[in-house]
Amino acid sequence: MKKPFPKLIVALCLAAVSAIASARDPLPSWNEGTTKSAVMEFVARVSDENSPDYVPVTERIATFDNDGTLWTEHPMYTQLVFAIDRVKALAPQHPEWKTTQPFQAVLENDLKSLAASGEKGLLQLVMATHAGMSTTGFETIVSGWFETARHPRFKRPYTELGFQPMLELLAYLRENGFKTYIASGGGIEFMRPMTEQVYGIPPEQVIGSSIKTRFETQDGKPVLMRLAEIDFIDDKDGKPVGINKFIGRRPIAAFGNSDGDRQMLEWTAAGDGARLMMLVLHDDAEREYAYGPANGLPETKFGTFTPSLMEEAQSNGWVVISMKDDWKQIFTSAQ
Amino acid sequence: MKKPFPKLIVALCLAAVSAIASARDPLPSWNEGTTKSAVMEFVARVSDENSPDYVPVTERIATFDNDGTLWTEHPMYTQLVFAIDRVKALAPQHPEWKTTQPFQAVLENDLKSLAASGEKGLLQLVMATHAGMSTTGFETIVSGWFETARHPRFKRPYTELGFQPMLELLAYLRENGFKTYIASGGGIEFMRPMTEQVYGIPPEQVIGSSIKTRFETQDGKPVLMRLAEIDFIDDKDGKPVGINKFIGRRPIAAFGNSDGDRQMLEWTAAGDGARLMMLVLHDDAEREYAYGPANGLPETKFGTFTPSLMEEAQSNGWVVISMKDDWKQIFTSAQ
Repeated sequence: MKKPFPKLIVALCLAAVSAIASARDPLPSWNEGTTKSAVMEFVARVSDENSPDYVPVTERIATFDNDGTLWTEHPMYTQLVFAIDRVKALAPQHPEWKTTQPFQAVLENDLKSLAASGEKGLLQLVMATHAGMSTTGFETIVSGWFETARHPRFKRPYTELGFQPMLELLAYLRENGFKTYIASGGGIEFMRPMTEQVYGIPPEQVIGSSIKTRFETQDGKPVLMRLAEIDFIDDKDGKPVGINKFIGRRPIAAFGNSDGDRQMLEWTAAGDGARLMMLVLHDDAEREYAYGPANGLPETKFGTFTPSLMEEAQSNGWVVISMKDDWKQIFTSAQ
Repeated sequence: MKKPFPKLIVALCLAAVSAIASARDPLPSWNEGTTKSAVMEFVARVSDENSPDYVPVTERIATFDNDGTLWTEHPMYTQLVFAIDRVKALAPQHPEWKTTQPFQAVLENDLKSLAASGEKGLLQLVMATHAGMSTTGFETIVSGWFETARHPRFKRPYTELGFQPMLELLAYLRENGFKTYIASGGGIEFMRPMTEQVYGIPPEQVIGSSIKTRFETQDGKPVLMRLAEIDFIDDKDGKPVGINKFIGRRPIAAFGNSDGDRQMLEWTAAGDGARLMMLVLHDDAEREYAYGPANGLPETKFGTFTPSLMEEAQSNGWVVISMKDDWKQIFTSAQ
């Protein structure tokens, strides 16, 4: 027998890791019940080589929406808070904004006029604050903002508002060979500076909406300039498109919380073999927020979960996570 | 001391792996010389924790052009051969092609008229053969084609025409913690069905040109339909754009063979710290093909390596690989 050494070592490694893993609960912030069981049974089925539902490691792809699924999206999307803060910071260079909507609304904290400006107004805010600089310049701006910005209610950095149960779920899936991806309607380059730190998800596993970039040479140095032009909207119908483009494989598990995630879950469900589709329902006004309008919860502007999505989930065996009932703890403990 | 077991095991694992690795030449198909040394010295510098040029594993990103860098691109791009074969296969359903260019040229094997149809003609061929079906349908067509198609000169499947020295280089980089990506002007969904088998590169690490897809529900089942509309051209200026979009990190090593790779190498070179930029020069008509027009080699239609690219390589310390001098063997041994 030649070179038994490495094989033996590998076997010992696996035994040691497996012994440690089985000794603890991988999802300590989840209450016991059907929701937690659904996750654990799915993972066991696809990762046990003797199971008829076994899935090779390379095909264990899980995609997660970000806003409202992995972190708080109320009272408004974090990226919108960023855009508003940037408008205020840039206002001295744009005196015309004092009398031009939707900028005037932002500068006067007039949320009603801001809402009235609709999607078009939102797009103007995004373009004015997200374009016109290089990719590295934008990364610096975003990283700096995350360091100082605080959530108005929880008074913590946004990077501490990841949901503890979802962080455990991400880690648990990765321990079981899954590659975890974000597939969000949010801006890809807004998320990338924080996803590794907050979720353990590297930039190359982040899919999101984007504006176009252009390769240029400035002072003899190549840069990618961010242009005020939409490249791709990674929401609703766009999610399966973005997932297919970036990953080239169909996920076997997908996690969302709103109607924007419907098609991602449908696309995931339509593959062969074992599948897990889950939706986070924000039904916990006390510890976080409560909104629907599914289940008679209040209707709000961000992260709509309609009764028709609830119906589709129920008819298809998608698992609805009740924040109130299924989660022991919402956020990570104060650091 | 608590739980010394796993740590000890990990240390033993690393020692064992390292001992095995140092015992063999990782690049046996490369002749000794400055080219091979450039690769090995670079890898040593970035992977030695005590080196001032050390790069953490997560940042060890290497991007490779495909056509002419990883596999043969003559007498024409493999994807063009595929498009031509598909036009012939689909012709019975399109009687009008008998009298419509560029289809007529393809059906009559009239390469002169085909060339005269230019980029516009090429695009028409691509749209007629790559669009109008679902993504899974297209994957089936491509996989089937790769099984039966043979290269006209080497009489082997295209999937056996990867360059052996580059396959060794890919494996060597991965053994040293690199994530290897393809960044090609070729179609992303044309490459993905074969990159894992040929290069050990999974679909999620393939960047390429694409047409748009649309999410639809057909007979109650969601599909992604391929549309006859350009989404993104991953060539020249587009390569850094595609790399930034898909990976969100700048590569520390980039490999190409033509003017289409110039901006990818410039973008890679412009980062801080140790960098490796390499270009394959096809100067071996006997074992593969010879074309430039750099170095006085013949000028051809596919994979142009201009004198100006050669000049840029030489002024910037990019390494030019001579197929003739640096490679002991071109293709994998017959299987």
